[in-house]
Amino acid sequence: MSCTADFSGSPYADEVRGQVEAALEGYTELGDGCPDDLRAAMRYSLLAPGKRLRPMLAILAAEACGGSRVEAMPAACAVEMVHAYSLIHDDLPAMDDDDLRRGLPTCHRKFGEALAILAGDALLALAMEVLADGVWPAEAAAACCRVLARAAGPCELVGGQADDVRNGGGAAGVEMLESIHRRKTGAMIGASLRLGAITARAGAAELDALDGYGRSLGLLFQITDDLLDVCGRQEQTGKRVGKDGDLKKLTYPGLLGTEESLRRAEQLCAEACRKLAPLGSRAHGLEAVALSVLRRNR
Amino acid sequence: MSCTADFSGSPYADEVRGQVEAALEGYTELGDGCPDDLRAAMRYSLLAPGKRLRPMLAILAAEACGGSRVEAMPAACAVEMVHAYSLIHDDLPAMDDDDLRRGLPTCHRKFGEALAILAGDALLALAMEVLADGVWPAEAAAACCRVLARAAGPCELVGGQADDVRNGGGAAGVEMLESIHRRKTGAMIGASLRLGAITARAGAAELDALDGYGRSLGLLFQITDDLLDVCGRQEQTGKRVGKDGDLKKLTYPGLLGTEESLRRAEQLCAEACRKLAPLGSRAHGLEAVALSVLRRNR
Repeated sequence: MSCTADFSGSPYADEVRGQVEAALEGYTELGDGCPDDLRAAMRYSLLAPGKRLRPMLAILAAEACGGSRVEAMPAACAVEMVHAYSLIHDDLPAMDDDDLRRGLPTCHRKFGEALAILAGDALLALAMEVLADGVWPAEAAAACCRVLARAAGPCELVGGQADDVRNGGGAAGVEMLESIHRRKTGAMIGASLRLGAITARAGAAELDALDGYGRSLGLLFQITDDLLDVCGRQEQTGKRVGKDGDLKKLTYPGLLGTEESLRRAEQLCAEACRKLAPLGSRAHGLEAVALSVLRRNR
Repeated sequence: MSCTADFSGSPYADEVRGQVEAALEGYTELGDGCPDDLRAAMRYSLLAPGKRLRPMLAILAAEACGGSRVEAMPAACAVEMVHAYSLIHDDLPAMDDDDLRRGLPTCHRKFGEALAILAGDALLALAMEVLADGVWPAEAAAACCRVLARAAGPCELVGGQADDVRNGGGAAGVEMLESIHRRKTGAMIGASLRLGAITARAGAAELDALDGYGRSLGLLFQITDDLLDVCGRQEQTGKRVGKDGDLKKLTYPGLLGTEESLRRAEQLCAEACRKLAPLGSRAHGLEAVALSVLRRNR
């Protein structure tokens, strides 16, 4: 397997990304009852250019468990909707107060605060509807709803964000930092993998392998995200460089130093790939994702 | 049937309310990962004194279709969680900017804006988890998730709120007013009934009857809510009287006058009760609710 390739720019990733984006377009056409400005705000954030990491993970997990891309697509779209919702709400003035996201004005800067709050709310509800409606059979739909709702809920995504907002002053230590990221980033990465696997009717051993991979990948992702903020350029991240440092937010480079953070990222990448062993060669795409995440700030 | 009794204060309603509140307490104990202040903000709004109309409708609908209260309880709690979430977000400074709710400081006045936004988000996700996890069998769980997510989504609840915020200046007419209320209030009332019915494995004729009842009840509820704002006292509503009028919000008395609004409410109540005919005597509780809503501002 060509583990040196940049997965995110590979023909496979481009193809999947195109299919996911077409499906997201379709899901957000929406019918009567949805005001035009609300639809526009939802689509603005959801369809903004992005790597579509979470949908990619859902689809790769399904394929690694012998499932199909078509069957995994509602799950892939649902996790991207929850991701977009969480970014919109995180960017709000009452939270991180960000003006830029992926190089564009944040949703509330573009549409106003009320519509941004509502667009986030609507994307969360729509994600659940897409799962309940699009995953088959009903056992798998209910299981997907349970996993996604839990990952998006008070003990995971929202709980992590609440601790993140409160610890904006940077008083907490590495344990709180890891706990925040496990809930804010890790839980949704884990849910993406699990949702894909459920649509492929995966067994317990496959789910365990993906859970382990997801835990390592989640932390790896957050460390490289922090490193990107220290070392990256604005054009690459689409947000102001050093912003997290300015606000004295908890970051890995801030707590461990850049060198140690890089070493830790490499360990986690190796760990993530090891966890995939039980899935055999069908998991090579997931290995490539881990390497691609490790390399994104080189 | 004693249609003159005040349903909301009846021994039946008191008993059901107690059971619903105990279940809501249990669902919001939450485990590791949920920060204390987030849990406190969620419980503050969710467990504030209230009539629990929507859970009551879910349970009455289940019982009207031959189902059990225990089986309907997760659905009853889920609709109350979505209701509480929508109130928290509606009250935010960027939306209606309310300081009081049910006689108490609104969630953001008590816990700050960031936690209020997150408490709302968390309640929406928790509602979906409670349904996916607590309704049985899986077909019913998936159907409940689909119905609730749709009612809480961009074409219903959130869409109605977006139009409401935009039309805060009162420029729109009675059609927009009804469309807003159908989506903001009616959709969740309809979903409460339908969820209860699904947990009772209701047939198509039963679902149709409940849908018709729910449409009339939803409008009735909104008209009496508007009338309460004009005629009620602050102690009764827990919010400042005349506030909607101050802000030139669209209201029925504002558009139709008080007399015509009252006449319309009476028609809707009669209509709601007529729609229940196919359900027979098991639907008397739902009739009593309609009468109780009609009489709440006398």
